[in-house]
Amino acid sequence: MRVITGLQPSGDLHIGNYFGSIKQMLNMQEENQMYMFIANYHAMTSSFDGEKLRQNSLKAAAAFLSLGIDPQKSVFWLQSDVKEVMELYWILSQFTPMGLLERAHSYKDKIAKGLNANHGLFSYPVLMAADILLFNAQIVPVGKDQIQHVEIARDIALKVNNEWGEIFTLPQAKVNDEVAVVPGTDGAKMSKSYQNTIDIFNTPKAIKKQISSIVTDSTALEDPKDWQNCNVFKIAKLFLDNTEQEALKSRYEKGGEGYGHFKMYLNEIISEYFVSAKEEYEKLLANPSKIEEILEFGASKAKKQAQETMGKIYAKIGL
Amino acid sequence: MRVITGLQPSGDLHIGNYFGSIKQMLNMQEENQMYMFIANYHAMTSSFDGEKLRQNSLKAAAAFLSLGIDPQKSVFWLQSDVKEVMELYWILSQFTPMGLLERAHSYKDKIAKGLNANHGLFSYPVLMAADILLFNAQIVPVGKDQIQHVEIARDIALKVNNEWGEIFTLPQAKVNDEVAVVPGTDGAKMSKSYQNTIDIFNTPKAIKKQISSIVTDSTALEDPKDWQNCNVFKIAKLFLDNTEQEALKSRYEKGGEGYGHFKMYLNEIISEYFVSAKEEYEKLLANPSKIEEILEFGASKAKKQAQETMGKIYAKIGL
Repeated sequence: MRVITGLQPSGDLHIGNYFGSIKQMLNMQEENQMYMFIANYHAMTSSFDGEKLRQNSLKAAAAFLSLGIDPQKSVFWLQSDVKEVMELYWILSQFTPMGLLERAHSYKDKIAKGLNANHGLFSYPVLMAADILLFNAQIVPVGKDQIQHVEIARDIALKVNNEWGEIFTLPQAKVNDEVAVVPGTDGAKMSKSYQNTIDIFNTPKAIKKQISSIVTDSTALEDPKDWQNCNVFKIAKLFLDNTEQEALKSRYEKGGEGYGHFKMYLNEIISEYFVSAKEEYEKLLANPSKIEEILEFGASKAKKQAQETMGKIYAKIGL
Repeated sequence: MRVITGLQPSGDLHIGNYFGSIKQMLNMQEENQMYMFIANYHAMTSSFDGEKLRQNSLKAAAAFLSLGIDPQKSVFWLQSDVKEVMELYWILSQFTPMGLLERAHSYKDKIAKGLNANHGLFSYPVLMAADILLFNAQIVPVGKDQIQHVEIARDIALKVNNEWGEIFTLPQAKVNDEVAVVPGTDGAKMSKSYQNTIDIFNTPKAIKKQISSIVTDSTALEDPKDWQNCNVFKIAKLFLDNTEQEALKSRYEKGGEGYGHFKMYLNEIISEYFVSAKEEYEKLLANPSKIEEILEFGASKAKKQAQETMGKIYAKIGL
């Protein structure tokens, strides 16, 4: 299956991102044809700090590559390097009833949260449709809040196909229900906006600080502890196989160790888990031209598919 | 001054177009730096017949060139050949409050006239803003119905300049009040949608038929005629100098000639007026690759300016 995913231009990935979506993406890479892009055009709807956007795009590329995106096997590029998507966005706009956009929850939610009601935010789903349809993606892995956007892309594709014949593959949203909910340091869902994350690529000192801030109860050091309701355990569990989980449970139940010990252990297993990714990340960041080279290679593959799709469209619109 | 004009991709120009706007444009060409493009992206908001759009774009280019657009002196290109405008359209969307578009009369008017309320039609003013701002145009000659769109472009430019410094020139609408109102064959304003036109590049037979359909009164051949209220005279006047106008008035006042004679005379002066343009038009249409070559030459000049503008923007947004 051909799968497309837009990645936020951010190097600040945390273990909630990793177990919530990145791991699934890496698993899919084995048996699917993945199209993955750093969505820097989309990022412009919320921020316009150019230097930051450029840095974050590079950091995001380094992060995803070091975590396991394979630029040979998959198509991995920077959105703005394949400008065909902008032209398709305009063409698809002619097939997008205003009602479809006016009913989009995500736009309304963002306005309710205080973002400016501007045209970029409003028309975001049309650009997302262009991203998906340009590359004939069949599957779009998304969070629940993005299902409607994939449906909009599908509606637009249907309208175009009705008019012009089979130009576009009809995409389907794929919501991974089995995704682990990763608790943050305060027990709520881990999320950058809650400032309760444990970062993957931060400094050891900063990560240690994040881990020590995990909220625990006040059971005394010598007493048995309740692993079932412990955030440290819940996070550690993600990194451990069954045997290791059982061993940790025993330590909780036995008493004689404080949460500080468990946090220290968590710090060790997290750091061990990401040790090679972090090495690779630092290596890439030290050599930005290497990252750019990889992104350009990906863009050349993506462009080939984009031009094939646009060729079919040009024939219809007389360009 | 730098002036920008978008031209409808249509070869079916009539003398209402000519005296209503084309002649002013050609006059401006002498003393201004003109940017003139065949607006085929805009045309997509109303029709998607590809073969027709391609043909009409070529015919429009041939028509405007033969009427006097000078591709050396001016910048004359096909809109879709300078794709930077699409990227700018997306970027400007981030600076376009929804209210600005929601208040656009032209969108509401088009919906009221029965066009589908789709996103292309709605966002049209943002693309028009991109057209204008990409080329740093100072003056935009427009009909009254388009003044608001130039104001929208100006508002967007102001917002961008507030954020990023002096990126864009603030454009101004120029409505030519002295423009001759050209009556159609039925006396109403000449317009394709009223089917009351006298075409410039149609066959002599078709043009003759259009002229003979001009509505006149029933004054008998031998009686004096009222030139002041005669559509034939009103149209003929556009082509005549003062002496010629006086001579024609005398023929009306003397009597002894029917409207058929005046229509024959009108046919002669129209055909004489456009004789070399029509020759050039046919020559160009017989050699489409010549037209394409001229448009490509124009696109290369337009692209240079477009890339200069986008370079300033890339520096701000980190591309």
